[in-house]
Amino acid sequence: MIKVGIVGASGYGGGELLRWFANHPEAKVVAATSKTYAGEPIGKAFGSLAHSDLTLSDDDLSSVAGCDVVFLGASDDAAMCMAGPLLKAGAKVIDLSASFRFRECDEYARWYKSEHKAATLNAEAIYGLPELHREEIKSANLIGNPGCYVTASILALAPAAKAGLLDLNSIIINGISGVSGAGRSKFCLDYHFSEMNESAWAYKVGGTHRHTGEIEQELKALAGEEFKLTFTPHIVPMTRGVLATCYGSLKSACAAEEVKEIYKSFYKAEPFVQVLDGLPITKHTVGSNHCHIGLAVDERTNRLIVVSAIDNLGKGMAGQAIQNMNLMFGLPETTGLQAVALWP
Amino acid sequence: MIKVGIVGASGYGGGELLRWFANHPEAKVVAATSKTYAGEPIGKAFGSLAHSDLTLSDDDLSSVAGCDVVFLGASDDAAMCMAGPLLKAGAKVIDLSASFRFRECDEYARWYKSEHKAATLNAEAIYGLPELHREEIKSANLIGNPGCYVTASILALAPAAKAGLLDLNSIIINGISGVSGAGRSKFCLDYHFSEMNESAWAYKVGGTHRHTGEIEQELKALAGEEFKLTFTPHIVPMTRGVLATCYGSLKSACAAEEVKEIYKSFYKAEPFVQVLDGLPITKHTVGSNHCHIGLAVDERTNRLIVVSAIDNLGKGMAGQAIQNMNLMFGLPETTGLQAVALWP
Amino acid sequence: MIKVGIVGASGYGGGELLRWFANHPEAKVVAATSKTYAGEPIGKAFGSLAHSDLTLSDDDLSSVAGCDVVFLGASDDAAMCMAGPLLKAGAKVIDLSASFRFRECDEYARWYKSEHKAATLNAEAIYGLPELHREEIKSANLIGNPGCYVTASILALAPAAKAGLLDLNSIIINGISGVSGAGRSKFCLDYHFSEMNESAWAYKVGGTHRHTGEIEQELKALAGEEFKLTFTPHIVPMTRGVLATCYGSLKSACAAEEVKEIYKSFYKAEPFVQVLDGLPITKHTVGSNHCHIGLAVDERTNRLIVVSAIDNLGKGMAGQAIQNMNLMFGLPETTGLQAVALWP
Amino acid sequence: MIKVGIVGASGYGGGELLRWFANHPEAKVVAATSKTYAGEPIGKAFGSLAHSDLTLSDDDLSSVAGCDVVFLGASDDAAMCMAGPLLKAGAKVIDLSASFRFRECDEYARWYKSEHKAATLNAEAIYGLPELHREEIKSANLIGNPGCYVTASILALAPAAKAGLLDLNSIIINGISGVSGAGRSKFCLDYHFSEMNESAWAYKVGGTHRHTGEIEQELKALAGEEFKLTFTPHIVPMTRGVLATCYGSLKSACAAEEVKEIYKSFYKAEPFVQVLDGLPITKHTVGSNHCHIGLAVDERTNRLIVVSAIDNLGKGMAGQAIQNMNLMFGLPETTGLQAVALWP
Repeated sequence: MIKVGIVGASGYGGGELLRWFANHPEAKVVAATSKTYAGEPIGKAFGSLAHSDLTLSDDDLSSVAGCDVVFLGASDDAAMCMAGPLLKAGAKVIDLSASFRFRECDEYARWYKSEHKAATLNAEAIYGLPELHREEIKSANLIGNPGCYVTASILALAPAAKAGLLDLNSIIINGISGVSGAGRSKFCLDYHFSEMNESAWAYKVGGTHRHTGEIEQELKALAGEEFKLTFTPHIVPMTRGVLATCYGSLKSACAAEEVKEIYKSFYKAEPFVQVLDGLPITKHTVGSNHCHIGLAVDERTNRLIVVSAIDNLGKGMAGQAIQNMNLMFGLPETTGLQAVALWP
Repeated sequence: MIKVGIVGASGYGGGELLRWFANHPEAKVVAATSKTYAGEPIGKAFGSLAHSDLTLSDDDLSSVAGCDVVFLGASDDAAMCMAGPLLKAGAKVIDLSASFRFRECDEYARWYKSEHKAATLNAEAIYGLPELHREEIKSANLIGNPGCYVTASILALAPAAKAGLLDLNSIIINGISGVSGAGRSKFCLDYHFSEMNESAWAYKVGGTHRHTGEIEQELKALAGEEFKLTFTPHIVPMTRGVLATCYGSLKSACAAEEVKEIYKSFYKAEPFVQVLDGLPITKHTVGSNHCHIGLAVDERTNRLIVVSAIDNLGKGMAGQAIQNMNLMFGLPETTGLQAVALWP
Repeated sequence: MIKVGIVGASGYGGGELLRWFANHPEAKVVAATSKTYAGEPIGKAFGSLAHSDLTLSDDDLSSVAGCDVVFLGASDDAAMCMAGPLLKAGAKVIDLSASFRFRECDEYARWYKSEHKAATLNAEAIYGLPELHREEIKSANLIGNPGCYVTASILALAPAAKAGLLDLNSIIINGISGVSGAGRSKFCLDYHFSEMNESAWAYKVGGTHRHTGEIEQELKALAGEEFKLTFTPHIVPMTRGVLATCYGSLKSACAAEEVKEIYKSFYKAEPFVQVLDGLPITKHTVGSNHCHIGLAVDERTNRLIVVSAIDNLGKGMAGQAIQNMNLMFGLPETTGLQAVALWP
Repeated sequence: MIKVGIVGASGYGGGELLRWFANHPEAKVVAATSKTYAGEPIGKAFGSLAHSDLTLSDDDLSSVAGCDVVFLGASDDAAMCMAGPLLKAGAKVIDLSASFRFRECDEYARWYKSEHKAATLNAEAIYGLPELHREEIKSANLIGNPGCYVTASILALAPAAKAGLLDLNSIIINGISGVSGAGRSKFCLDYHFSEMNESAWAYKVGGTHRHTGEIEQELKALAGEEFKLTFTPHIVPMTRGVLATCYGSLKSACAAEEVKEIYKSFYKAEPFVQVLDGLPITKHTVGSNHCHIGLAVDERTNRLIVVSAIDNLGKGMAGQAIQNMNLMFGLPETTGLQAVALWP
């Protein structure tokens, strides 16, 4: 049984890891930490775990000593501090922050307006998107786990980028997210039920969202060329779910069916990516680790439009993190991850 | 591996059974039927199962021949017809309709305005609420699986009824339900998102809801006396969840803490019922098989108020049905039912 | 043109007054104050008023000097301090807090756990429910404007109390409210969209909600007898709307149609109360000043069940306050209040 | 007092017209027709109008005889049949269908896959977007009233198109709509509350949405050049609201502030269009006739991104129709349209 530690377990990412691990036959959460709830039963932080006898520990390294794997649900700064000692102590580390997602520390600094504080570690970190980096993940000790918009966007565009179908500089990604993507602590009037309900808006318009760089990094690697894209996130009144609608000009005319074949072939062995005949619906993935992808070609304008849907806390966070863990520990990749989306 | 059949698998009850069974280590759905989707892959009925290779069969008995257990998600009439042949063929039957929930066929006829068509079978059916009928369920072949309001209400009032705390004729149950309780096919303008969203209403006011008789039946058996209660259901704009707020006059003054002890003691060995120190929140149970209960005493009026929360499709339907199956097949009661509620 | 001042204009009550006054042909908001937004255009507090050129003033008395009527959307303490000077300066005052809702200051102190600080003023305040106190309101200078649960509950029970139909001590009121009832500033994790959405719960269970005393006061006056009731509020995932489901034992058997006639007769001249043949739906009142009432008799238990629906910020707050103002200034009662509920 | 007739009054457009007219001081609905509810009080179709004494008439021309203006909320075919006789009888006609929105009947036929049946009338119809066609509307007798996506999109892009800022062929419009946009009768399982709630999806992906042609028509006229754009609509779980996020490549680098000045200048005299310093939020427009616009420039990719928000049933339908009526009858344009959005 793999001994699991979770740092920052009272946020949405931590809670979601606890939810998934309740059904994992080969791993058990033995330590979970929280600044806010240290010393309290986990049921205080999550009423959904009222029946659990797990107690939240102080939010420091000693709490997770002896764990085989530690999931870091902390700030970037905390993650950069904690990852080193944990690795030295022999634990594998899966980091949910942005700390270890960029191959180049400079690129991190550019998007996060802050110097990277663990450059050496970063050099050995692997980007935790199994569909693109499966083999490296298997032997990794430190994973930078991608976020929700990024996972949805890269999975939507990877086959097209790889196949060279698109004029990459034409790419526009229009993201729609549920409110849980804003996290549990970032709690402002905007997310008050009364104000958020029955409303929709765009934010960080104009290329300033930090996920942009991460998406470009992975697509560049696949396509082998430099480019810049536009990414615009939106928030709508639902709790979970990310829908990425991705637009790109086709280099040459190409029927939708042809593109679909390229996509189906690209993902044919993937347990968690389904290329649909129709279009994806976020709710079909809520609570699961699946990514659904649909696509069409706008023949009037010669654009490819790919739409992908995931649960931002599932494949967009905790589910993917466990998928990485399974790979790192030599388990079948789907172990403990076969949950079907809640419907309705 | 237990071979499972589901009749009427394209409704919400059927879909929920399929969702739960995806994580059940000792049982496997080998046949699922649907009038509407016969011959289609299950992904047509539920996009959440796009990755499944199960195909829906014609909606008749031959489709589920050879199953060890059959869950009936059909109409009352169909259930009364199908149960007999299935039992004869050696299958155990768990019926999700109202057909086998009443000890007295007359009582069924009174509430459902229709003669009972399988009186002999009804005599051997067991009411599938494990917290009250565990031992009988273990040896049962035919289960009448209770519905959502009923499960929430009975679990909220059983300890008080058993302990004789209440003037039973004073009982009023105020139920609040999510919209999925109306089912997938009962599709009228009332449930159109645009009209249902941001709205709340009461329905079947004045004692006409058919669940009333079922609640009375079980509480009478516990208390050993006749009585009549008032039950008023409400619908509010959420998908899943039932909250039952139950009022009853205390026979003699009794502190809330005292009552709470009686409740904690009554449910102390139950894996799926938690008596809280605070008050329950429906969302803490969504996607799980748990029932959360909280209570208070209104000292000004000497009333006990017990509030219970469940997922109407979990403990209120499919989760409970599988809990019954586990008992009938000698499995640990919690097998495959350890899912934690989705939060947020 | 009546010169209107609003103190505390950046809360939901203040915003709603501004919304209603935009369509009032005989009154104009000339001053609106806010601690948080002093000096800012109103569009900063409410994006819905981006087109308005009103600027928010400092939150003190001088800001509303010269107004014919001042609406106080402040705390109880502030209201008790400000009402006197405003009245002395010749303004009429309509107070949205609880300060002037109780005939007896002792009763206020009992429910609000705080001494009443303006007993002399309280003696001349009128309870602002036009359907019960129309004539007194016409000549009043100071109004204690009732809250949402209270308005819905009293309107639901007044005809029955007046007609002596009920055993008053049997009354149980089960209230359901949208989230805006919690106000704009009371901002805790409970109301975070992600946690509130898809959830329902009861709160202040056991007779501790402060609105209880206010409901009892008005029904006692109508019935001419002492009694105590139980009131249990619930919150559900919608923004606006209050549904009060009121239960009471009939003194003697009485058909629903008979009771309905009593209700229709009681409210026959009321422009804002509709006694329906069916049951009310909160959404039918959202954005309006209407109260919809429906009822049934549970013949098995001899209980009358009356259900009423209002918009908590309309008839439950700002609409009613303007209705009071119209009466105080000799205007037709419906002036500026003819808005139809938003549907869908 | 202008005598108003509404054909097809039991749909969302009709109901919204009735809501708006309740506050219009210069016009009165004297006839409203409905196939479904002919002979019934309007309260049957809309519970929000339970207090109204209007009765719905049979759905034919005689019902609206003698009206000064008739709003057609019927199918395209019915509108093409009815408009002629109504005009002949001296009524002005404002049509909510697509029948009279295209300058070229061929263009109508291309997008609607159906021959235009009233080409002569179409030649005299005016496109009812007051911000672009105010003077023609003033003297028009027949108006083709634009729909919701179209209004939001054209208002978002008109100033840029007029000023020649954009490479028009690069335009991508990503629309997000509330569910009421699907209408009251188009009632499929997709819009069932339980399935639509907590979900988001794209539809008609690949340039097949019929509004595309209408947007192109108006922008072409402003820019004076041919082009083709991509429009992708999305549906999210809210009732009202349209958000159009519009992307276009700038012909030459241009600071956001510069573009904003162009926009503010373009709309400076418009009572219902606000160019914001920040970004629009759909809920700030719900229930109103306002359009909010915000914009940014993505300097990395040299794209202009303009976001606009409206209420799809307000400025996107009924509010705009009344704005047209005001112009046609020489009333101040804002008469009866000053409602402020419901907040929260």
